[in-house]
Amino acid sequence: MNRQILLASRPEGEPTAATFRIADAPLPVPVDGEVLVRNLYLSIDPYMRSRLATAKSYAKHVEIGDVMVGQTVGEVVESRAAGFAPGDRVLTSLGWQLYGAAPAAALRKVDDRRVPLTYYLGALGMPGMTAWFGLREIGQPKPGETVVVSAASGAVGSVVGQIAKSMGCRVVGIAGGPEKCAYARDTLGFDACVDHRAGRLHEDLAAACPDGVDVDFENVGGAVLDTVLRLMNPFSRVVLCGLVSDYNAVDPYGLKNLRMVLVQRIRLQGMIVLDWADRYGEATAGLAALYAAGGLKYRETIAAGLETAPQALIDVLRGRNFGKQLVRLA
Amino acid sequence: MNRQILLASRPEGEPTAATFRIADAPLPVPVDGEVLVRNLYLSIDPYMRSRLATAKSYAKHVEIGDVMVGQTVGEVVESRAAGFAPGDRVLTSLGWQLYGAAPAAALRKVDDRRVPLTYYLGALGMPGMTAWFGLREIGQPKPGETVVVSAASGAVGSVVGQIAKSMGCRVVGIAGGPEKCAYARDTLGFDACVDHRAGRLHEDLAAACPDGVDVDFENVGGAVLDTVLRLMNPFSRVVLCGLVSDYNAVDPYGLKNLRMVLVQRIRLQGMIVLDWADRYGEATAGLAALYAAGGLKYRETIAAGLETAPQALIDVLRGRNFGKQLVRLA
Repeated sequence: MNRQILLASRPEGEPTAATFRIADAPLPVPVDGEVLVRNLYLSIDPYMRSRLATAKSYAKHVEIGDVMVGQTVGEVVESRAAGFAPGDRVLTSLGWQLYGAAPAAALRKVDDRRVPLTYYLGALGMPGMTAWFGLREIGQPKPGETVVVSAASGAVGSVVGQIAKSMGCRVVGIAGGPEKCAYARDTLGFDACVDHRAGRLHEDLAAACPDGVDVDFENVGGAVLDTVLRLMNPFSRVVLCGLVSDYNAVDPYGLKNLRMVLVQRIRLQGMIVLDWADRYGEATAGLAALYAAGGLKYRETIAAGLETAPQALIDVLRGRNFGKQLVRLA
Repeated sequence: MNRQILLASRPEGEPTAATFRIADAPLPVPVDGEVLVRNLYLSIDPYMRSRLATAKSYAKHVEIGDVMVGQTVGEVVESRAAGFAPGDRVLTSLGWQLYGAAPAAALRKVDDRRVPLTYYLGALGMPGMTAWFGLREIGQPKPGETVVVSAASGAVGSVVGQIAKSMGCRVVGIAGGPEKCAYARDTLGFDACVDHRAGRLHEDLAAACPDGVDVDFENVGGAVLDTVLRLMNPFSRVVLCGLVSDYNAVDPYGLKNLRMVLVQRIRLQGMIVLDWADRYGEATAGLAALYAAGGLKYRETIAAGLETAPQALIDVLRGRNFGKQLVRLA
């Protein structure tokens, strides 16, 4: 038997127990050209919140009654497609379920002999790709510049900061709580990390960025972005990658410091990693090299069992996870 | 005798009669290398509001007691500098006063035989340069794309729209009131113009932009920008040139639709025309050619007498002027 988590209702504000429901389903039967996959790990990411809503976005929302979307890594159980054999490890978009059948073109074989399998959902997966292209292509930091990254200990932010360090930048994280900040400094090697929950973000960030901010890699938005904007230098860049502080908001935050974008000639640019899909190989190679050289630390929080996925998403949207959030499915 | 308008106090909110004071002063005496200029026309522009405040900006604020800053066109009365002779027409930064002495390097001789002298403060001056570089270099519209410009009948907006038309774009203006909208459509040749005072900006703009918005040349900000953002296409651009709706605000507008920048991968970029100072010649040539071809209409509102300058600025900040606001000084 298969088990699935389906969208049960659209949340107003934070998702709740009523947002999802769990259901048993028959084991899917692959047709010619398809592969049956047993999902081993499910990725939980902030973008999933926007799939619960019908607001205009870059990807379609999930319909009520459909399996919740998401990436997994799994193992091939049965193959009716050339190039895939039972036991192969694959990256999938099969969503919140224990098993799924997918056409070969929707799967990517991954090699877990040199990096942990779960990294294909994280540092070497979409979060890593997001960090790589967002920082390098949109942020365009130069050696010696100051890069600020919010959600600094998270799946994307932690990679952003380490890439920026490898590029010779001063890296200042913003994270929620002293434990995450200590991790960003001591383990990830950031030059500084500021706790946005300490109530003096502007003062602390100003002290950590004596030469101002040249690149802001923004994962949080809201008051955090408004504060960073005040410190940005002429011709600086904001990589607008996420607005997690707003994802549950019924009434979005009103950004006050747009004037800084004007007077400092800031380039503020939205980025969605899917736009770089034809260049993922380049990022994978770069990140794998950084990992091999010891310059890419990565932390995961792994919840156990499909039924924990809704709470894991709620936690991610609250910033309660530490590092990359996953759910172990088998 | 000279007459000057000095900054008397820093306004909270809208400038008032107490913001400026008028003062007589001795006629300046040019030293070697300087030129004495009699100002003929003073330019009144929204950016002047920010010079009244001490908030961080791209240029220094005016000190209390100093002559208010601004560009003028004038005529040389006495020259102690090579290359300038009495009667020459010059573009200056002498500010709100009847006469001034300036070093030759701070003046630019202008030719008013083929274009009206005042155009060097407008269509062929800073507003024209702003339109040219902002639209072409930041907005980067392609033929067939939809360009929206706010303050459409104004000194910058009217030029933006006409350049965009010459580039083969669909041009939709946003202006305050039916008279300005009719002017943008009938005289400037915009494809449509929407009255933001009519109370249904989103609906009207959506109807005028059936294919969405590819470039927003933003002069107004606030609720106008928030509304345009909702209609912007993937990979569209916002040229953040002005935020006039906020310049008098004690508490700035909170921008709600930043999420659109993320999901549509919008590039929102601040622009200050001074950054293109080394390329003004290129824009002047392009705009002069457009003017000669009949593709550059330009409207001016001219107040009479130095003492009208404070009210003229107040009017500009309220959107009460029509076209380029000037003050005739002689």
